[in-house]
Amino acid sequence: MVEVGYYNGKFGSLAEMEIPMLDRACYFGDGVYDFSLAHNGKIFALDEHLDRLYRSAALIEIEIPYTREEMAEILYEAVSKSECKDVSIYWQVSRGTAIRNHIYPDAPCKPNLMIMVKPGKTAGVDKRFKLITLEDTRYLHCNIKTINLLPSVIASEKARKAGCDEAVLHRGDRVTECAHCNVSILKDGVFRTAPTDNLILPGIARAHLIKACNELGIPVDETPFTLAELMDADEVIVSSSSTLCIQATEIDGKPVGGKDPVNMDKVRNAVYKEFNDYMGI
Amino acid sequence: MVEVGYYNGKFGSLAEMEIPMLDRACYFGDGVYDFSLAHNGKIFALDEHLDRLYRSAALIEIEIPYTREEMAEILYEAVSKSECKDVSIYWQVSRGTAIRNHIYPDAPCKPNLMIMVKPGKTAGVDKRFKLITLEDTRYLHCNIKTINLLPSVIASEKARKAGCDEAVLHRGDRVTECAHCNVSILKDGVFRTAPTDNLILPGIARAHLIKACNELGIPVDETPFTLAELMDADEVIVSSSSTLCIQATEIDGKPVGGKDPVNMDKVRNAVYKEFNDYMGI
Repeated sequence: MVEVGYYNGKFGSLAEMEIPMLDRACYFGDGVYDFSLAHNGKIFALDEHLDRLYRSAALIEIEIPYTREEMAEILYEAVSKSECKDVSIYWQVSRGTAIRNHIYPDAPCKPNLMIMVKPGKTAGVDKRFKLITLEDTRYLHCNIKTINLLPSVIASEKARKAGCDEAVLHRGDRVTECAHCNVSILKDGVFRTAPTDNLILPGIARAHLIKACNELGIPVDETPFTLAELMDADEVIVSSSSTLCIQATEIDGKPVGGKDPVNMDKVRNAVYKEFNDYMGI
Repeated sequence: MVEVGYYNGKFGSLAEMEIPMLDRACYFGDGVYDFSLAHNGKIFALDEHLDRLYRSAALIEIEIPYTREEMAEILYEAVSKSECKDVSIYWQVSRGTAIRNHIYPDAPCKPNLMIMVKPGKTAGVDKRFKLITLEDTRYLHCNIKTINLLPSVIASEKARKAGCDEAVLHRGDRVTECAHCNVSILKDGVFRTAPTDNLILPGIARAHLIKACNELGIPVDETPFTLAELMDADEVIVSSSSTLCIQATEIDGKPVGGKDPVNMDKVRNAVYKEFNDYMGI
């Protein structure tokens, strides 16, 4: 198999997998997920992704019925089922299967674990992004990685229709993040990125970018920045677990960044080096 | 069967129904739905619910692959499969089945229709609600009836834990609506209800309440009202397709309403009369 699916103990070909209609994921989006890349059976930064998954689940009171070790074992097994060397792994825990009712189902209803493995790798150091800006219309729980993703879906599609790779979201003047990535800037030698409040997802690639900056001696400023500061940045950086660290060169059709190639290269190379070293690439 | 499920042409017992893991409903909440009550095979206000479903779908660019007549026929068939006289019918259209990718899938990907029928009836004219107030943390597309419902799920559970029936949501001082109902007030003989902007769902029971007020000569004011006005209202009315028109008597542990029983009764009776007449109850 290339694309692998898993649901509550059962593996199969992803396209053929089925789940109960009464899984609360299907009609409430009542679940959390996480995502990483794998290479030769190794999952990048799995500990951090598990930390985030359990934190997301706890924030909406889903009690994951697996220990971290059990969860990791299932994820590694899922990755091993794919004959593909470079894959992405997505895993989701929903609150459970029950007749539709907004309130949480009573015991013995148990959370459901669903996994999707498919071919996937980083975009590569040469990739550049074009972005559009859009008002951020998402809920106020963006710190929780839930499957209530419709506003991100709509924003992503708008970006595609505009011939762009991603959408930068903003609440009024404050830049929050992209539809499914974080966004940061380099300005006057400082790495600026929005603070991890309820308006952005605490990205793991973002955390690795901050770590890289700390190691490189690039000061990090976690205060919100504005749309004007984004447009005027020396460099604009889009990051996620699949994009890692991508330089944006155009926003709303206007050229941006490209004014601090030295630091841009340093940061990007550090993030890629960490990834490649860990994965044995 | 009592509880009936349907998915893309296939009927079955609700608890046994399965859907593809790759239905975008399962991992993006990328779909819209509607809901009504049925009695003796008759679905209440189906035309209005179909109007809203097609409008919701259009607002997120889902093209429903059925005419309204075809959709109605399938819904009536679903209702007829239940041996129960009083049921609720929930139907959902997701964008389609595809490998997970935020952007919309290309043709020939076709939207999926899912239906759930289960026993259900109105709460009845004697039912009273206790409410709690919560900050409205939902997205800014509340006018679209999508399945991105996690904030409503969380609010409903908070209400239950507080021993209440529903949560009144507010953005700052402005009352928007409840977790899964609209909320309106009677004050000085005027029926006040939030305008149908992007912060509330255009409830069909709400529309019937307005119609009833118009017929009863009760003035209707569709400007937003505040939390203070809610607490000080002569009557507080919660409405939805299943609750129809319920008087709230307590909010955050404090008694509310009960100061205009004449108009409260008139409005409630009018709404119930319309429902019962239509349904032949």
